[in-house]
Amino acid sequence: MIPVGIIGDGYTAAELVRVLSRHRRARVATVFSTENIDKGFAEVYPHLLRFSEVICEKADIDKLKRECQVVFLALPHGLSAPIVRELIGSGVRCIDLGADFRLKDPKIYEEYYEVTHEAPELLDVAVYGLPEIYREKIRGTMIVANPGCFPTGAILALAPLLKEGLVETENIVIDSKTGVSGAGRSLKLASHFCEVNEGVKAYSVGSHRHAPEIAQELSFAAGQEVEITFTPHLIPMSRGILTTAYVKLRPGVTEEQVRQAFADQYADEHFVRVLPEGTYPHTRWVYGSNFVDIGIFVDDKKRRAIIISAIDNLNKGASGQAVQNFNIMFGLEETEALDFAGIFP
Amino acid sequence: MIPVGIIGDGYTAAELVRVLSRHRRARVATVFSTENIDKGFAEVYPHLLRFSEVICEKADIDKLKRECQVVFLALPHGLSAPIVRELIGSGVRCIDLGADFRLKDPKIYEEYYEVTHEAPELLDVAVYGLPEIYREKIRGTMIVANPGCFPTGAILALAPLLKEGLVETENIVIDSKTGVSGAGRSLKLASHFCEVNEGVKAYSVGSHRHAPEIAQELSFAAGQEVEITFTPHLIPMSRGILTTAYVKLRPGVTEEQVRQAFADQYADEHFVRVLPEGTYPHTRWVYGSNFVDIGIFVDDKKRRAIIISAIDNLNKGASGQAVQNFNIMFGLEETEALDFAGIFP
Amino acid sequence: MIPVGIIGDGYTAAELVRVLSRHRRARVATVFSTENIDKGFAEVYPHLLRFSEVICEKADIDKLKRECQVVFLALPHGLSAPIVRELIGSGVRCIDLGADFRLKDPKIYEEYYEVTHEAPELLDVAVYGLPEIYREKIRGTMIVANPGCFPTGAILALAPLLKEGLVETENIVIDSKTGVSGAGRSLKLASHFCEVNEGVKAYSVGSHRHAPEIAQELSFAAGQEVEITFTPHLIPMSRGILTTAYVKLRPGVTEEQVRQAFADQYADEHFVRVLPEGTYPHTRWVYGSNFVDIGIFVDDKKRRAIIISAIDNLNKGASGQAVQNFNIMFGLEETEALDFAGIFP
Amino acid sequence: MIPVGIIGDGYTAAELVRVLSRHRRARVATVFSTENIDKGFAEVYPHLLRFSEVICEKADIDKLKRECQVVFLALPHGLSAPIVRELIGSGVRCIDLGADFRLKDPKIYEEYYEVTHEAPELLDVAVYGLPEIYREKIRGTMIVANPGCFPTGAILALAPLLKEGLVETENIVIDSKTGVSGAGRSLKLASHFCEVNEGVKAYSVGSHRHAPEIAQELSFAAGQEVEITFTPHLIPMSRGILTTAYVKLRPGVTEEQVRQAFADQYADEHFVRVLPEGTYPHTRWVYGSNFVDIGIFVDDKKRRAIIISAIDNLNKGASGQAVQNFNIMFGLEETEALDFAGIFP
Repeated sequence: MIPVGIIGDGYTAAELVRVLSRHRRARVATVFSTENIDKGFAEVYPHLLRFSEVICEKADIDKLKRECQVVFLALPHGLSAPIVRELIGSGVRCIDLGADFRLKDPKIYEEYYEVTHEAPELLDVAVYGLPEIYREKIRGTMIVANPGCFPTGAILALAPLLKEGLVETENIVIDSKTGVSGAGRSLKLASHFCEVNEGVKAYSVGSHRHAPEIAQELSFAAGQEVEITFTPHLIPMSRGILTTAYVKLRPGVTEEQVRQAFADQYADEHFVRVLPEGTYPHTRWVYGSNFVDIGIFVDDKKRRAIIISAIDNLNKGASGQAVQNFNIMFGLEETEALDFAGIFP
Repeated sequence: MIPVGIIGDGYTAAELVRVLSRHRRARVATVFSTENIDKGFAEVYPHLLRFSEVICEKADIDKLKRECQVVFLALPHGLSAPIVRELIGSGVRCIDLGADFRLKDPKIYEEYYEVTHEAPELLDVAVYGLPEIYREKIRGTMIVANPGCFPTGAILALAPLLKEGLVETENIVIDSKTGVSGAGRSLKLASHFCEVNEGVKAYSVGSHRHAPEIAQELSFAAGQEVEITFTPHLIPMSRGILTTAYVKLRPGVTEEQVRQAFADQYADEHFVRVLPEGTYPHTRWVYGSNFVDIGIFVDDKKRRAIIISAIDNLNKGASGQAVQNFNIMFGLEETEALDFAGIFP
Repeated sequence: MIPVGIIGDGYTAAELVRVLSRHRRARVATVFSTENIDKGFAEVYPHLLRFSEVICEKADIDKLKRECQVVFLALPHGLSAPIVRELIGSGVRCIDLGADFRLKDPKIYEEYYEVTHEAPELLDVAVYGLPEIYREKIRGTMIVANPGCFPTGAILALAPLLKEGLVETENIVIDSKTGVSGAGRSLKLASHFCEVNEGVKAYSVGSHRHAPEIAQELSFAAGQEVEITFTPHLIPMSRGILTTAYVKLRPGVTEEQVRQAFADQYADEHFVRVLPEGTYPHTRWVYGSNFVDIGIFVDDKKRRAIIISAIDNLNKGASGQAVQNFNIMFGLEETEALDFAGIFP
Repeated sequence: MIPVGIIGDGYTAAELVRVLSRHRRARVATVFSTENIDKGFAEVYPHLLRFSEVICEKADIDKLKRECQVVFLALPHGLSAPIVRELIGSGVRCIDLGADFRLKDPKIYEEYYEVTHEAPELLDVAVYGLPEIYREKIRGTMIVANPGCFPTGAILALAPLLKEGLVETENIVIDSKTGVSGAGRSLKLASHFCEVNEGVKAYSVGSHRHAPEIAQELSFAAGQEVEITFTPHLIPMSRGILTTAYVKLRPGVTEEQVRQAFADQYADEHFVRVLPEGTYPHTRWVYGSNFVDIGIFVDDKKRRAIIISAIDNLNKGASGQAVQNFNIMFGLEETEALDFAGIFP
């Protein structure tokens, strides 16, 4: 059993422990907490009773070095970078579920996150952990930058079209709808039940931190700079992200080419389910699972395509994808511990 | 008291009865039903106990002619047209909450609604019932075509910009999120609790019947044909529509001009609240009320504006607006029975 | 216009401002806040845009004395008592939405609320503000102790039976289900969206602070000590309390007598709707309104009655009832500003 | 692989297919449907894409006899009895998720379900499928009567106390709160989104069909007739049942004895988690899992105990328990395919 450490005790940490509880090759050796020190993790999250005996501990990086082969970091941005540097120096591999290693350009990081990057020299070492695009690089890396939840859904929806040059690289509109768990377990008015329930709103309009991440990866896919407009919306549900992406077809591109691009790109991808024509994703179909469902609409007359993707933000959008990356890094079956269906209804 | 008739007993009819229950100049004389004949309306909708004594009746157009000055029709499309013809022939004014008189071109109506229009000669008589745009025409008309719920939110969000020529008339993306009551009280799997709860999906992708209605009215505002892409999404909540509209600024247009267009257009509109810069609508702020809230974001660098509007689909998106039209038609105070705040939380 | 002051800026304060915005005889002169000082109340609660111009102020009791005839206190327990003493000393009448004046026995108050009562000499001056029981006393009082939300629903469900001696005073089980707004706007994990959504739990089992309040008032109604078991449950909704009360019929008591007790007690009560046999309340029917709906089931064979009541916790369970009390205190129409139907769906 | 058949295609059937998809010893050979014949089961329930290749078929009992060793019947009451008789006659074992074999007395069945029982001679053959009570009998039986959802939660909460004679057998109040999936996928107004959302109601007050089932099993546990009052409530959530059961302690019984009864009864039960003192269940902790969580409160002064249980109505309340029974019947590991944690948040 590979001993793994987890830093953090929020919702993504809880989902990591849940997913790893059925992993046949990994064992959660320790969880670091700040507010629940000495409590059983299953006391903090009673749905895990019988599935975790771990006791939350005070952070102790030396312990991770001694006892773990890999560490999942589920921390607010800015905190991971120095820890990662220290851990990899001791040969401990890192999967960072935070934002510190996602953006290749530290200036953009600093502009959006408003902190100085503490380990810019590692940005080239880190691999962006989207297995459907970077699988080979993930295999050998010491640092995985686990993608943001919105970027996961948006990039998987659009990369095939941009890679194949089928759509314009401008005037791309990405409109996402997310459940509330993406905002974490920290108390804030915006996550207070009565402020969310029975309503919907846009937030971080024009300024969300996932926008440059999406733009970066779509630009890599396109081989040229891509301009996007990204707006997230908060929906009264706990889990799930639906992303509706609007693109303009390039002259001469046919619906068949659009569909073929997805078929080609995802033919062997277990976790990507391209839905049949006329069927569009519902976030409930991926609820609690690591799948991303994709629906495709092409309006030949208006020369537009609408690509819709659904993920569970805590699975494919965070902890499930992190375990997928872990499996790849350690040469395990990629679907280990992840091969389960969503829960409906 | 002006005697009014209501045809239909679904959610919009219930909301009409609720709103009219505090109207000082109108009295609901009769409600026509098919499935609840002889039941008290407040037995069908117990929230109206003490507010309505009306008994549901079998449809009887002659009775409307004899007893009512105005009739609200809350019927599935295709059923209103012949009734309206008959009623106005007897001098009874009509407010149609259905789709029959919204589209000026019967061919587009027949393409989208897949029925033959029964009274095409009245399409020019009918006035599109968006008071903020057609107030003067509404005053004198015999037929109001009460707007669709999505069009209300979308048109009020975009008309000022198109009217002033500030934005491109192409590449307009309108992404709407609606609560479930818009689908009515008729049983269907898509409105079954467990199919909606804790999830979100797009529907009628590329084919929603409100798309041509939005395009028609925005084209009138622009004075030229406008091309839109409209996608509605179903959200796990009962009431409310949030519309996020993405447009491209014309060369040279400034943020100030954009904001000024809204300030000018809605300066005297009681039911339109243009929110201050940096504030974006939440559907809860208009819940149960006739207001439309509008938030404006301008990205000068990308030359884009995002306009976000929120309405209560059963009020400003249906019954509240119908009463607003009624007030205008009959020369009453426009806010009569409608001057109440939304309910939060 | 009677100038009124409000101390507090949480959900009950917001509902007070909303209700009072259509009061024809009252005017909100000032609202005291701690965290929103100098902000417009409608900036804090944008659903009130166009309905409130009040600016939140720092607490200033002298200002209340100078400018207000009545003050609504929406404060955590323990804070109201000294303020009320000072205000009534200057002739300002007080309606306390908190717990300080509800329990007649300061020892029970201190046991349950774990603070010393600061003004025990006023407990006999204060009138428990349940108009359906204490209307006459409310008329003349300087201090109204506005009832707790659970007690309102429970007492109105059971008092008629206990008053008439129709049921046993022991083995009474009161099982309540509440929406989340009852917990207020202060941040706490128990009100965090993801901790509440899609689940239900009991809380404060055997120890809720409203239990002694219910027992006190039911004992007064019965004329002897009544023993209750009260358990509240948290439901994933914003508003509403459903209370299911289980009692044992006394020997010889008939179903007819049970129904008659309610008919008699509430014959002239505008805000109490006793539902017909076979109909049981739904909290949606009272949503946003000041009504309490009551359904009655009698099992003659098992000698049991089940009484079910529904209220909106922010209206009849808090602010609506406070305004009802205000109307009575000042000799106004009791339904002023409160005569509106619930919102459904 | 043991070939299994499923009759029915509602939510419980979908949950059976989901659970069985990871069963290492069973294979879903066929699913019978009425409305989805020839559709892929994963087309009807897309969350099962990649987990089920089964095509829905028209009912064909002969096929079940030829190809299946066991059949799960997920049918409305009244339909199972004749099919079960035929199947067991051919040596096919049956697990009936409907009500036909739960009540031992056909007269009570006929009174509550208002149909004639078609196979009363099998009532003694059938075993009530609550493994924590009837494990040994289940092992050898041809027919399992899978318990109702409410009875599962109520019986597991109270049987230990009644079996040990610690509580009175009268004046037992059982107040349950259920999600909407228990009402199935068939369209009905009571399951229409807008009729359920943001509200709570009691239903089937005094007449729910699960009441005699609970009474029967608790009477068996007590060894004497037990009288219960059972009231279910509908909560705006998809899954989960919370049951709050109120009982009266017998003279001399101590809190320790109460807790010990649960500790003894459930010491070796994998799927029953008795929570520590002061912790009460939340349905989210068992969401999507086969666990039942139990919390215990004892009020020594009032001589009362409150036992609260939480289950997922589609798992331990239906399909999970059916698979648990299947595992026992076929001598497999009892937790096979069921050993996973609930999903939170």
